[in-house]
Amino acid sequence: MKVAFIGASGHWKYAVNGIKTEDELQICGVSPGSKGEDISPLVHELHKDGYAPPVFDDYTKMLDEQRPDVVVVDNFFSDHAHVGIAALKRGAHLFIEKPIATTLKDLEALYRAYEESGCHLAAMHGLRYAPAFYTAWSVIRSGDIGKPRLIHTQKSYRLGSRPPFFKHRHSYGGTIPWVGSHAIDWIYWFSAKRFRSVFASHSRQGNQDHGELETTALCHFTMEDGVFASASIDYLRPETAPSHGDDRIRVAGTKGVVEVRNGDVHVISGVEGVRKLEPKDPGNIFQDFVQHIRGHKECLIGAEDSFYVTEICLRARQSADENRVVELSR
Amino acid sequence: MKVAFIGASGHWKYAVNGIKTEDELQICGVSPGSKGEDISPLVHELHKDGYAPPVFDDYTKMLDEQRPDVVVVDNFFSDHAHVGIAALKRGAHLFIEKPIATTLKDLEALYRAYEESGCHLAAMHGLRYAPAFYTAWSVIRSGDIGKPRLIHTQKSYRLGSRPPFFKHRHSYGGTIPWVGSHAIDWIYWFSAKRFRSVFASHSRQGNQDHGELETTALCHFTMEDGVFASASIDYLRPETAPSHGDDRIRVAGTKGVVEVRNGDVHVISGVEGVRKLEPKDPGNIFQDFVQHIRGHKECLIGAEDSFYVTEICLRARQSADENRVVELSR
Repeated sequence: MKVAFIGASGHWKYAVNGIKTEDELQICGVSPGSKGEDISPLVHELHKDGYAPPVFDDYTKMLDEQRPDVVVVDNFFSDHAHVGIAALKRGAHLFIEKPIATTLKDLEALYRAYEESGCHLAAMHGLRYAPAFYTAWSVIRSGDIGKPRLIHTQKSYRLGSRPPFFKHRHSYGGTIPWVGSHAIDWIYWFSAKRFRSVFASHSRQGNQDHGELETTALCHFTMEDGVFASASIDYLRPETAPSHGDDRIRVAGTKGVVEVRNGDVHVISGVEGVRKLEPKDPGNIFQDFVQHIRGHKECLIGAEDSFYVTEICLRARQSADENRVVELSR
Repeated sequence: MKVAFIGASGHWKYAVNGIKTEDELQICGVSPGSKGEDISPLVHELHKDGYAPPVFDDYTKMLDEQRPDVVVVDNFFSDHAHVGIAALKRGAHLFIEKPIATTLKDLEALYRAYEESGCHLAAMHGLRYAPAFYTAWSVIRSGDIGKPRLIHTQKSYRLGSRPPFFKHRHSYGGTIPWVGSHAIDWIYWFSAKRFRSVFASHSRQGNQDHGELETTALCHFTMEDGVFASASIDYLRPETAPSHGDDRIRVAGTKGVVEVRNGDVHVISGVEGVRKLEPKDPGNIFQDFVQHIRGHKECLIGAEDSFYVTEICLRARQSADENRVVELSR
């Protein structure tokens, strides 16, 4: 199975880490996917790991010459969809950075290409594979906390100094789709409910010369059956914090509460009361994706989920831009 | 200084605890304030503490005969305003359970009575006096985390079995004004910003035969200067949890983050990075109120704050009832 990389602007390491442990995967080429994109960190990492794939400067040329089976798409965020379409049209399965599109129009075009291709597609919602989150999700699936009723999620990152393409909405896409997509994905994945409406807000204040990048965002979702969910999103995590991100979820259900905080899983339910669970590792996201393509298993992130969550992210951004409730009917 | 109690349906213990340590306060009477209200727990507690005040069954009679200087109002929640007005009209200072009114009309009438009385009024926002919250608020006041930009609050209670008046909106007022008022008060107090809009949701699902009581609620506030705040409110805390309530706040500012969780105060800021602070006790809420009346100090809860926070609670409830954004212009 031949794998090509287009771009190195997000979580390409998911794929590199997965390939390392898979003997039957061959890296057939790497290329930038956005104008001015620097893929040297990827090339450097591959060399370090003993890979020396051909480097292209035109990804369409690479796709036509190398005919990869799988393409890892990870460009400036607004290019995910265009590059993804080019790969799907050539029959490649897509492992694609989220948000998989930064406009609803691009999302629709990508969906059409996906439908016509017969290929698999999974967005890089890598935090489904973070052991604590996977374990908390398993608790909910077991029925231990009853029916989820109220969910709060948090994404808090250090801002640091971001590449120039983060500073423009047209290339970055916005903080709700970029940082918030993880939280929105958790809400959907944990609740197993469709979204009904969103009210969101975002602000650029305090973004330390990051142009149009939003420093803070808050989303309020109503879901099927009167389940409610919030997402608190910020780039305000201090540089002196002990980690880059502070990812959290709390789900209150009819029979208990489950939480992830600081990489730990806390549950209160049943007669046992409070417990801290040992996080279970579900394995590497890219390996899971490859095994899905091989027909060995259903991977944790479906294509439909990838499209749906991206749509909700873009609707949430629209709500924040237009300062109004956006109904989510489908 | 003569103190009378009208009702015993909420946090009357704040006042009893304060009186115990004040030699110059005399309890001149106790009475129910709502039809069918049981004040025996209050009478019992006072007897236990060595007080034997006269017990009235008509609070207006008590007010006219005993002429208290201070009245503690703590009835079925929809009666707070009416009873409060009766006390203010007789020139008594009001220590009054929150929400101080359950309709905007009652709130306006109470405000008029307050203005005409020249008396002091403070709502029982007792959680301003919870050491961890007071300490976190002091951190923000010190400027240590810079300007607050994003706030999340949580109120989670055990439901247990509530008195019958909780089951009816007309007597209970709703979960946003009752449980949520603490969270909304923190948001206002911590941010020191006026509210601009609210979008809220609430649901009665899973309320275990508690009639119209809402089990879950979620509020999304936009504040002045693009500060955003959420309040997650529920009665889903399991019976086996280690405490009745799980109160939290997290404030992310331009220079750091402060949090209260499990009674602890966590700060990340400056060169020191992560710290856990020793909570400072600001003393008893009722003593603070009495010292304010005596002119000795400014108490932590002003009358204007009490009215404003109640108004925001009622507007949030309206937003949830009507499923729309409510603008908060004043």
